[in-house]
Amino acid sequence: MSSVEKEDKVGVYKYIAEPFHVDFRGKLSLGILGNHLLNCAGFHSNDRGFGMVDLNEGNFTWVLSRLAIEFKDMPKQYESFTITSWVENVYRLFTDRNYALYNHKDECIGYARSVWAMINMDTRRPANLFELYGAELESFIADEACPIEKPSRIKVTAKEPKVRLKVKYTDIDINRHLNSIRYIEHILDLFPLEFYKEHGVKRFEIAYVAECYFGDELSFYVDELENNEYQIEILRNDDNVVCRSKVVFN
Amino acid sequence: MSSVEKEDKVGVYKYIAEPFHVDFRGKLSLGILGNHLLNCAGFHSNDRGFGMVDLNEGNFTWVLSRLAIEFKDMPKQYESFTITSWVENVYRLFTDRNYALYNHKDECIGYARSVWAMINMDTRRPANLFELYGAELESFIADEACPIEKPSRIKVTAKEPKVRLKVKYTDIDINRHLNSIRYIEHILDLFPLEFYKEHGVKRFEIAYVAECYFGDELSFYVDELENNEYQIEILRNDDNVVCRSKVVFN
Repeated sequence: MSSVEKEDKVGVYKYIAEPFHVDFRGKLSLGILGNHLLNCAGFHSNDRGFGMVDLNEGNFTWVLSRLAIEFKDMPKQYESFTITSWVENVYRLFTDRNYALYNHKDECIGYARSVWAMINMDTRRPANLFELYGAELESFIADEACPIEKPSRIKVTAKEPKVRLKVKYTDIDINRHLNSIRYIEHILDLFPLEFYKEHGVKRFEIAYVAECYFGDELSFYVDELENNEYQIEILRNDDNVVCRSKVVFN
Repeated sequence: MSSVEKEDKVGVYKYIAEPFHVDFRGKLSLGILGNHLLNCAGFHSNDRGFGMVDLNEGNFTWVLSRLAIEFKDMPKQYESFTITSWVENVYRLFTDRNYALYNHKDECIGYARSVWAMINMDTRRPANLFELYGAELESFIADEACPIEKPSRIKVTAKEPKVRLKVKYTDIDINRHLNSIRYIEHILDLFPLEFYKEHGVKRFEIAYVAECYFGDELSFYVDELENNEYQIEILRNDDNVVCRSKVVFN
C-alpha cells in the first residue's frame, strides 16, 4: 500500500454556493463551509476504506477534535468552488487532515486544518490508529502544502457569560449531541450584524472538548484581545467546558 | 411553446441525506428538505428560462408565499433520494409549484405544494405573470398528481407568546431578511425533544406574510388544537405578523 498515487491521496470535491448557504453579503456562510469540510473528510475516508460507515460496523467512529479555517475570500452566491482534502499526519491517537478551498477560477482562497480521533462507540474511548490500521492509513499521507498555522491554545478569562442559550431540537444530531456545525453558528451569532458590515472573519478555530445534549444551557464566555481577535469558551450548565474557539476578524 | 415535453416539464433532482442534515432519529431534517425544495424551484425555473437569476437582471425575483409539506417517511442518513418539481398552475400574480419526494427505492414518500409570487425588486410590488411571460410559463404546466391538501387558512388565538427570540447573524440571507429555512427551524424548535421521540411531523405548512430583519424580536404564539395539530403565528417586535404555520404530528 506504499504506492498510493497522489491523485488518490488528495480528494477533490465540487460545490456550488446555494442561495440559503450565503450570508447577508452573499458570501458562503462559514458554518456551511464547515459542513462541507466535514463531509469531504467523510467522502475521502469512506472512498479509501477508513471511513465512518465501514467503522460503524466495527463500532468505531471518527470524532472531530479541532478545526482551523483561514481564508482571504469566500465563494459568492451561485459560484462553483472546489474543496480538496488529504491526510497530513497519522499519530497513535490522532490524525491531521488538511483542506484547500478554490474559487470558480481555481484560485486558492483558503485552507483548513483539522484533527480527528477515532473512538470506540461502546466505551467512548480513543482507539489506537496504528493498531486499527497498521501502515494503511499512513500510506495515504500526502505531501501537500497547508500554509496556515496549526490550531492554537485558547484560554479564556472572562468571568461573566456574554450570552446564554438552550440546546434545541434542530441543534441535535443523530448521536443526540449538539452538532459540530451549530457550535460554529452559535459562536458567529455572538457578533452583531453591524460588526460584520465592517469586519469579515479571516481565521476561525474551534476545539471540541466535550459533548452537550438537548436541553443543556450553554453559556458563552468571550475575551476580546488585540487586533480584532476574540477567544470564546462555551460551558454547559455552567459546569464543564464543551468547546473553545478563536475568531480573528479583518 | 405549447409542445413542451413532459420530461422537460418535470425536473428531477438527486440528493443524499448528509450527516449534518439529519435529526436525532437519523432522518432528513425538515428544514433541510425545505432548503432542497426551494433550490429545486430555482434549478427548475432557471433551466427553463424563467428563474431568479435571469430575472434579477430585469429586477424581478420570485418570492415564496406558502409551502405545505406532507410525508409518510423521510430519507435516512446516507440514503439517496429524489425530488421532482413541476408547475401546476399559473395565475396573474401567483404560480403553484408542486413537488414529490422519493426514497432510494423510488417509492414516493411525500409531496409538497408551494405558492410563489414574482416581485419587482425596486418597488417590492407583485408583478403580472401573464404580462411578464405571456403564455410561456403556462406551456410548462404539468399534469402530475399531488394528492395532498392545499395550504389552509391559519388563525391563531393565543394571547401570550410561548417563546421570544432575536434574529441573529446566521439567520439572515443575502436580502438581509430572516431566511425562509430558519423560520421552519425556529418553529420546529418550539417542541421539546421528548415530544419528537413520541411524535413525528406528518404535515408542515408555512405562510410567509412579511419580512423580518436582523435584531428584530420574534414572538411565537402557539395554539394547540385537537389531533396533535398546532397553529403558530410569529410577530416581529410584538407588532405585525411575519409568518403563520401549522404543524401536524403523528
